[in-house]
Amino acid sequence: MKLLKERIREDAKIVSQEVVKVDSFINHQIDVDFLEQLAEEFYRRFKDKKITKILTIEASGIAIAILAAQYFKVPVVFAKKTVSRNLDKETYRSKVYSFTKQKEYDIQVSARYLNPEDHILILDDFLANGKAALGLVDIVEQSGAQISGLGFVIEKGFQEGGKALRKMGFQIESLAIIKEIKGQEIIFEEKVE
Amino acid sequence: MKLLKERIREDAKIVSQEVVKVDSFINHQIDVDFLEQLAEEFYRRFKDKKITKILTIEASGIAIAILAAQYFKVPVVFAKKTVSRNLDKETYRSKVYSFTKQKEYDIQVSARYLNPEDHILILDDFLANGKAALGLVDIVEQSGAQISGLGFVIEKGFQEGGKALRKMGFQIESLAIIKEIKGQEIIFEEKVE
Repeated sequence: MKLLKERIREDAKIVSQEVVKVDSFINHQIDVDFLEQLAEEFYRRFKDKKITKILTIEASGIAIAILAAQYFKVPVVFAKKTVSRNLDKETYRSKVYSFTKQKEYDIQVSARYLNPEDHILILDDFLANGKAALGLVDIVEQSGAQISGLGFVIEKGFQEGGKALRKMGFQIESLAIIKEIKGQEIIFEEKVE
Repeated sequence: MKLLKERIREDAKIVSQEVVKVDSFINHQIDVDFLEQLAEEFYRRFKDKKITKILTIEASGIAIAILAAQYFKVPVVFAKKTVSRNLDKETYRSKVYSFTKQKEYDIQVSARYLNPEDHILILDDFLANGKAALGLVDIVEQSGAQISGLGFVIEKGFQEGGKALRKMGFQIESLAIIKEIKGQEIIFEEKVE
């Protein structure tokens, strides 16, 4: 998506050859107008899939999930990373290793909010090694619901997540795929759009 | 707000005389259509305050903050609860004790996203003991920005947060204030709306 690539080129901060920060408009400060346009693009790509629910993971997936849900007219469910005494006892759980935070944690979703009739669209801000997305896939599969696709704002094409998920046969839509970070330049995969 | 009180009466689960769960429509599964109406109500109550930014805290404040931001046409910033290697070094921090999770944690916001010219609206899903909100107030004050008001979807009127914040002179708008949980009945404060 051209608009997104331009914005990344303009506003992302290159931290290292593996890390770009987009916290000025996507995942700390949020440019809501801009994200609305990304949400609309997800709708364009998945609108024929009869989505009944959008699943994401706290915290930085929530914004894009909410905005996309406005187009799909469905509820959002976000997986929780921490144990809360307010969570139901019956949950679907999966283990996720976070490279950013360098620890493993459980993610969970109340069993009440995923049903075998559901057609789930999984959305998140980033796809890198894919651990969080695979955790969400695992949770949806436990519930018996169908995974209709996965969407990511930014995919790091040089990491393993995209390959692993595509191998599983899912429709994966990443609005910008970073092929390489070369010095101070971000090189995107050029896909026909 | 009548609509919200009715929905709480219908769908909230009373866990104890102090805890109601609204995770079927506000903070785990999110009824986006419904929350949009709450967001519009926040706009109605704060629209004359020249808000430049909405500040919330991950994770369950993000949905309402994003939806309100669409009315105010401003960005959202959410305070982070965990240390991430992707966060800037220069941050405003505050300590918050969570009764739900029974531990103290730091919340932080990148110094770049709060400026002395900002007029901040703080939004969150719940106001109970007020610890998270006071942490956000502390962070805004460190930045030199102005606090234009605080909005909460649900306030537990029988806990101390509302009193503490109102004593500080802020405009506090809670869309539903629970006065008491009596057996299986939720009793709201009746305010002229």
